[in-house]
Amino acid sequence: MVQRTTDLERQQRKEFGARLRELRKERGLSQEGLAHEAELDRSYVGQVERGERNISLDNIYRFSRALGISPADLFTPGPR
Amino acid sequence: MVQRTTDLERQQRKEFGARLRELRKERGLSQEGLAHEAELDRSYVGQVERGERNISLDNIYRFSRALGISPADLFTPGPR
Repeated sequence: MVQRTTDLERQQRKEFGARLRELRKERGLSQEGLAHEAELDRSYVGQVERGERNISLDNIYRFSRALGISPADLFTPGPR
Repeated sequence: MVQRTTDLERQQRKEFGARLRELRKERGLSQEGLAHEAELDRSYVGQVERGERNISLDNIYRFSRALGISPADLFTPGPR
């Protein structure tokens, strides 16, 4: 049974992606640079930032380690 | 290509699961009760709490809404 993505879920993914982009740019990293640090694919970084991915816990941790922050910071507005 | 779960990932999932259980118990909820609030399966709640699941962003939000907290609280120790 394929579940449809709800509007709320789409909005949450967009918010998460925008926050990831903000934190990446704060650190002067390109998508390529973040992908390299997190050992993930550059196209995947772009998809997450555009809110196109229902990212997993493992990858949330990969991004937070690559950015040198706590995963909580990815859910908390404001400079880190 | 099936990726092996690393020890670090296993440990992160366990930590997340233990934090979810702590917050659930703080609110006097059973696994059944949390599952009902989050509109998820009770067995899934148990698996996440035992660190057996690489939970997705959508379900992290479902749990935080059901617990009345921010997703960041699921990554931050201490009472909420």
